[in-house]
Amino acid sequence: MSKLIVIGGVAAGMSAAAKAKRMDKQLAVQVYAAGDYISYGGCGLPYYIGGFIPDVNRLVARTPEQMKEQGIDVKVRHEVTAIDPDQQKVTILDRDRQQSFEEEFDQLIIASGASAIVPPMPGIDLDGVFQLRTIPDAVAIRSFIDQYHPRQAVIVGGGFIGLEMVENLQRLGCQVTIVEKAPQLLTVADADMAGLIQQYLEETGVKMALGVDMQGIEGDKRVRAVLTDRGPIEAELVLLSIGVKPNSEIAAAAGIELGIRNAIQINERCETNIAGIYAAGDCATVRHLVSGRDTYIPMGSTANKQGKVAGENAAGGRTSFRGVVGTGIARISGREFARTGLSERECKDLGFSYIAKKIEGQTAASYCPGATAIQVKLIAEGGTGRILGGQIAGGPTSAKRIDVIALAIASGSTVADLVDMDLAYSPPFGPVWDPLLVALNQF
Amino acid sequence: MSKLIVIGGVAAGMSAAAKAKRMDKQLAVQVYAAGDYISYGGCGLPYYIGGFIPDVNRLVARTPEQMKEQGIDVKVRHEVTAIDPDQQKVTILDRDRQQSFEEEFDQLIIASGASAIVPPMPGIDLDGVFQLRTIPDAVAIRSFIDQYHPRQAVIVGGGFIGLEMVENLQRLGCQVTIVEKAPQLLTVADADMAGLIQQYLEETGVKMALGVDMQGIEGDKRVRAVLTDRGPIEAELVLLSIGVKPNSEIAAAAGIELGIRNAIQINERCETNIAGIYAAGDCATVRHLVSGRDTYIPMGSTANKQGKVAGENAAGGRTSFRGVVGTGIARISGREFARTGLSERECKDLGFSYIAKKIEGQTAASYCPGATAIQVKLIAEGGTGRILGGQIAGGPTSAKRIDVIALAIASGSTVADLVDMDLAYSPPFGPVWDPLLVALNQF
Repeated sequence: MSKLIVIGGVAAGMSAAAKAKRMDKQLAVQVYAAGDYISYGGCGLPYYIGGFIPDVNRLVARTPEQMKEQGIDVKVRHEVTAIDPDQQKVTILDRDRQQSFEEEFDQLIIASGASAIVPPMPGIDLDGVFQLRTIPDAVAIRSFIDQYHPRQAVIVGGGFIGLEMVENLQRLGCQVTIVEKAPQLLTVADADMAGLIQQYLEETGVKMALGVDMQGIEGDKRVRAVLTDRGPIEAELVLLSIGVKPNSEIAAAAGIELGIRNAIQINERCETNIAGIYAAGDCATVRHLVSGRDTYIPMGSTANKQGKVAGENAAGGRTSFRGVVGTGIARISGREFARTGLSERECKDLGFSYIAKKIEGQTAASYCPGATAIQVKLIAEGGTGRILGGQIAGGPTSAKRIDVIALAIASGSTVADLVDMDLAYSPPFGPVWDPLLVALNQF
Repeated sequence: MSKLIVIGGVAAGMSAAAKAKRMDKQLAVQVYAAGDYISYGGCGLPYYIGGFIPDVNRLVARTPEQMKEQGIDVKVRHEVTAIDPDQQKVTILDRDRQQSFEEEFDQLIIASGASAIVPPMPGIDLDGVFQLRTIPDAVAIRSFIDQYHPRQAVIVGGGFIGLEMVENLQRLGCQVTIVEKAPQLLTVADADMAGLIQQYLEETGVKMALGVDMQGIEGDKRVRAVLTDRGPIEAELVLLSIGVKPNSEIAAAAGIELGIRNAIQINERCETNIAGIYAAGDCATVRHLVSGRDTYIPMGSTANKQGKVAGENAAGGRTSFRGVVGTGIARISGREFARTGLSERECKDLGFSYIAKKIEGQTAASYCPGATAIQVKLIAEGGTGRILGGQIAGGPTSAKRIDVIALAIASGSTVADLVDMDLAYSPPFGPVWDPLLVALNQF
């Protein structure tokens, strides 16, 4: 009987294991998960903290017991510490028994995920300083808030997760300050669009410390302030949301090739440079369909897709995942933001000639109650008119409209291809000239 | 100075006039509107009746005075009664003075719209029997309701407008019965999807009379019942929402070619068979991009697009409108429905070999408050996998997702092209496997 070992039990790992087993019922599938939980919706953690989701277990899609019923053996708190590609075996540390053992594999899928970047700074270990990647992280934050009722919260990092946390901390009574090293929020957005989100958050009472560099954290046992190059910022709770790094150390040690930002280099089939060893999800690279380059954009949706492909191929199939166009979305204190494709900055960096247009529209016919402002920015290639990117900011029902732009980019559509688009119209869903069409008509 | 006459002052007519004037400031642009109002959002009328829009004037985008400021002369209550293509003149009836006069044109755009179909049946003129196409229609309905407070309302016709009216009549205290000749609601949908909407409406208390043929209306001065082949149905208010027919009589009389369902036959440039005479909007045909055939699908969004093209070409430009894919959307008592492309029935009629798949998903991650059920049906061509159609039914934020399918169809995308789509994911916006991707993965 052939044996597949999967390292990691969250999005990519569980998708891979489940798909491989569905493909080949005879395949022995063994999953080793370093943490306490498997198969959980990590993107839902901010909403558990904020109380939108009362029970953290609702984030868990499947337990090891449920996987067992599908014929998949999952061991939690089992950390794979070494891979031996030549001998086709892995070394596993049973964290409870503090014992290591070896296990042979025929196929291996590395879905070891990513870890929050925690800068080595004074005070970073103080009580009340958190990162947010796992269920225990979220439970710790929520317990701390329930115990100490912090009024001043500092979020370090103005990316998607940091901004998603704003409404959740506000809901729990926190005054939020965002410390961001860049001169703008949301560096995946252009400054003009990020400025709209900034303005809105300021209206809800968020304080901005943009272009501000964290230098350390101050406190005795508990955090008291975030130290920055502009002075201290009072903080009873600090969330470090600076970014993540791929968990690729054991892969690198085994001679598996790493790519951009030390992510495990994979191809469209999720194969690494070593035959029989696959990688998927937040530990791995992904092809960007506009630039044609491999990049590192860890996303739960991508992890699921790559995991499925890795699982199918590891079980003897032959399938591929072409890549992403860089779509991202967030609800930000009741407003919405989404982006896809390349930003203006990315166009410049990659040497694309481009034209950018931006319009303000409404999410419903102007006479409809509930119509709110929506800003749509489109970026098209100079000459060809091929859509390179899009960004949307606005009220409810704004952001998911980005999907049309994501498909337009992936299908290589031009402005001319799209101006006649037969988008759905009825007053509760938009004006008779859909905001996307208005933006397209600017070119 | 060259002179353009535009017949009709609503969506297509005003778009045409405004575009032509922007293209050529020297062009004399004269609009004749048969009704009292121009440039109004006809699709918003149900929501005015229901009280979502307090003032009917909010539906009016531009008044004749505002058009005057743009250099466009608009005469309301002026009905064009004849077109003489050889002499290049039209005959106009000034309805207030009851006088006719003639006016010469260099270019003519016919945007005469459509009229509600009112079957010639006994009792059709009774008080309390309405159609809904124009602002005066809506005002009459609302006034009648305010005066008589009808409790029993019958909507004859289970199409988009009929179903949009349900929530608006319910809001005003009416018990609603829908009489529909076909055995299902929403004949633009397949029976399975229409059944979901039917079930939901029944849950809100709507009574269904499907497969039931109206034979007349009974009453003295005011309506008392709708007579059907299954017996009388009590009615204090009747809305006839059976469909519309193009206002093409004067065009036909002038030798302008009509096409399907007596709509004015136009090409991609919105040209009729007579040089210098264009048509646009609800009076005209439109190309269906999947069947490749000209069809009649009157829609406000299409009218605006065609009007713009007709106006640009009449002013000396050279542009075109390729066509539609049959996208439609409606909010139905808090639920949503949308469709695009071909239904199963249309596939059969057109001889397409097809595969249909349907899934149930959620509009947000299942652990998110506000997640509601969404049903997605996709239809792909046998062999090629080209997407031919899609239908969506579900709770809030469901239906506008149809736009992705509309673009997929227009761009000729196949299931294989789409399964990797980088759709936006964050828990408030959908599950990690977007419902569209789940549907695509069924093929």
